[in-house]
Amino acid sequence: MSGDIETFKKRIQELENELSQYKEQRNVRQKIASMSAEVVDSNPYSRLMALQRMGIVKNYEDIRSKSVAIVGVGGVGSVTAEMLTRCGIGKLILFDYDKVELANMNRLFFQPHQSGQSKVEAAKGTLQNINPDVEIETYNYNITSVENYDNFIKILQTGSLTNGPVDLVLSCVDNFEARMTINSACNELNQIWFESGVSENAVSGHIQFLIPGETACFACAPPLVVAENIDEKTLKREGVCAASLPTTMGIVAGFLVQNTLKYLLNFGTVSHYLGYNALLDFFPTMNLKPNVNCDDLSCRERQKEFALKPKPVVEAVVEEETGDLHEDNEWGISLVDETQPTEEDKSTYSEGVRAAYTLPVDSSPSTDTDIPKTDLSLEELMAQMKSI
Amino acid sequence: MSGDIETFKKRIQELENELSQYKEQRNVRQKIASMSAEVVDSNPYSRLMALQRMGIVKNYEDIRSKSVAIVGVGGVGSVTAEMLTRCGIGKLILFDYDKVELANMNRLFFQPHQSGQSKVEAAKGTLQNINPDVEIETYNYNITSVENYDNFIKILQTGSLTNGPVDLVLSCVDNFEARMTINSACNELNQIWFESGVSENAVSGHIQFLIPGETACFACAPPLVVAENIDEKTLKREGVCAASLPTTMGIVAGFLVQNTLKYLLNFGTVSHYLGYNALLDFFPTMNLKPNVNCDDLSCRERQKEFALKPKPVVEAVVEEETGDLHEDNEWGISLVDETQPTEEDKSTYSEGVRAAYTLPVDSSPSTDTDIPKTDLSLEELMAQMKSI
Repeated sequence: MSGDIETFKKRIQELENELSQYKEQRNVRQKIASMSAEVVDSNPYSRLMALQRMGIVKNYEDIRSKSVAIVGVGGVGSVTAEMLTRCGIGKLILFDYDKVELANMNRLFFQPHQSGQSKVEAAKGTLQNINPDVEIETYNYNITSVENYDNFIKILQTGSLTNGPVDLVLSCVDNFEARMTINSACNELNQIWFESGVSENAVSGHIQFLIPGETACFACAPPLVVAENIDEKTLKREGVCAASLPTTMGIVAGFLVQNTLKYLLNFGTVSHYLGYNALLDFFPTMNLKPNVNCDDLSCRERQKEFALKPKPVVEAVVEEETGDLHEDNEWGISLVDETQPTEEDKSTYSEGVRAAYTLPVDSSPSTDTDIPKTDLSLEELMAQMKSI
Repeated sequence: MSGDIETFKKRIQELENELSQYKEQRNVRQKIASMSAEVVDSNPYSRLMALQRMGIVKNYEDIRSKSVAIVGVGGVGSVTAEMLTRCGIGKLILFDYDKVELANMNRLFFQPHQSGQSKVEAAKGTLQNINPDVEIETYNYNITSVENYDNFIKILQTGSLTNGPVDLVLSCVDNFEARMTINSACNELNQIWFESGVSENAVSGHIQFLIPGETACFACAPPLVVAENIDEKTLKREGVCAASLPTTMGIVAGFLVQNTLKYLLNFGTVSHYLGYNALLDFFPTMNLKPNVNCDDLSCRERQKEFALKPKPVVEAVVEEETGDLHEDNEWGISLVDETQPTEEDKSTYSEGVRAAYTLPVDSSPSTDTDIPKTDLSLEELMAQMKSI
């Protein structure tokens, strides 16, 4: 009988040891009160605080006071959340209503053992483990439904660390309806936000910076579905599974967070639009001015407010001849080129407009080193989109 | 006494339950014999196989026969390994001799509980858990020491799934000596490879494609340390901790793996050089021809072999006037511009040469939207580097 007890005791000891090994893998990192620049292996912020010594950022620790809302925690949103968490952002607010599936394992972040969990809860667990200093709030719902929209608006207005509006909204959703919902909310709240997207064929993507009244809103540049009032669902091809790659999604998340850091910490130049064509490693940039006839009432109101604001005095800028782009096109959108490319480069800038609506761009494998010569004006592009 | 035994039994049951919960989080994903394109939530390859249906890749499953060696499993190398693992690469061979530290937590991939583990072992654990179909081999040593170099060479020659040479070598190291070692090995073995790097100020990076004899090798374009025969260690500033960002490193890893996929699966255009300037979202590209007077004997031999090879008949290409770049400069390097930018863009292409040696580029915070006008020829650049 005492032999039995010894066996039990031994078994309990074994199990406790094994369990403590698993437990040790959790929460080894304690919370840290302030960001230190001390160069020791145990300091998770030394390489970020070094940005000050290198002259890149004036006060890196400001990041701890910033709150960012991320809508969509999929291939782009999850990596975006991880990057901001590792950068030591003050607070993240995550919105998604989807579950983790094994079919998501071709992108970064989620792991097979999280299959079946809600994306926001699974993400919170991983992120909190990586950096317990970040406050993480999650909403496991669809922002496009009427009752959730009101709550969504409220969270954006009061979600900061001081119960004020969030500093930035990042759209990482995969459908048009959710983008339009974020657009309406941000126009209504006068909330600055970034849009992001990856094409269905996985080899192009973009980010776009939206300042209500100052830059084009998502409704200002109407894609096919808006212009023609088509139900988005009828556009999706039956049984078609969109392709995706961890590379393209990781790069788009990288662009999004890099520009978020530049905006929040006030360094470098924030891109108004940055596209990525993976087949050619081509990166179109542009500025989109708001459409005075935009369908979104709040957008038109913000435009009026912006027009009345005193502008900072800047040196005269000589505008480049835009050639193939018509300033007074029927959509009322003007494209202002920032990088002054050659005529050949310019023609492909329209592609950005296509990418913005996540329709696939020309995807035929190509070994051509030239930039494709699809000479399209915005009208021609719209005509082409209508003919699809 | 029997009460005691019941208590023991209950405790054992409790511990076993708790332990099984932890164990369930591991290895939930079983090995899969072949890549299916079936669109079900449980298929981890459906979104990758969709690249075929979308017309991007002819035979995606070819990736399962490919072997890639990654040298350096830090901020760029670890994300590179994760992306390739999620893409379903056949085999990964990882080289590193470093340990995971909390100071690495500002980059993607490693987690706090892995602190103290060797980078290659920690990486293997995570990667195998993400995708058990990938074969992962690790070498926890410094490739630059004499005895390890011989083994390194042997692994590159025999490391493929069929015991032949690996398909590609990816350099993700953070120092000049290791890059020169990889360069020597690849020139000797006639092994195609990619170089990658991120600057010390964290806001620029690059990838470079190296085909022995056909493109410039790492010794062809001599940075300051080679040209002046300076010991690299004397260049590193005392007590200076390099800055790093998860964004820049994730983007460089994304460019590296995207171009790896294009090369291995034969789609799109593989960039010979792709730079990234995070402050301006500027992406210089160029071609670097080999230096006929390269110090590396194997490089000169590969150049002779390449000169004798029959070339594919291509249409005549009209070369752009390179203006500020001297074709016959003292380093024997010619820069061939691929994207035909304006004169202003062109001037900053030299920055790519600087970034290649991971010296920081101009890092003063700037809100200027213009491309900086540092008009430098390669000689002027070298002169400037010498004066640092």
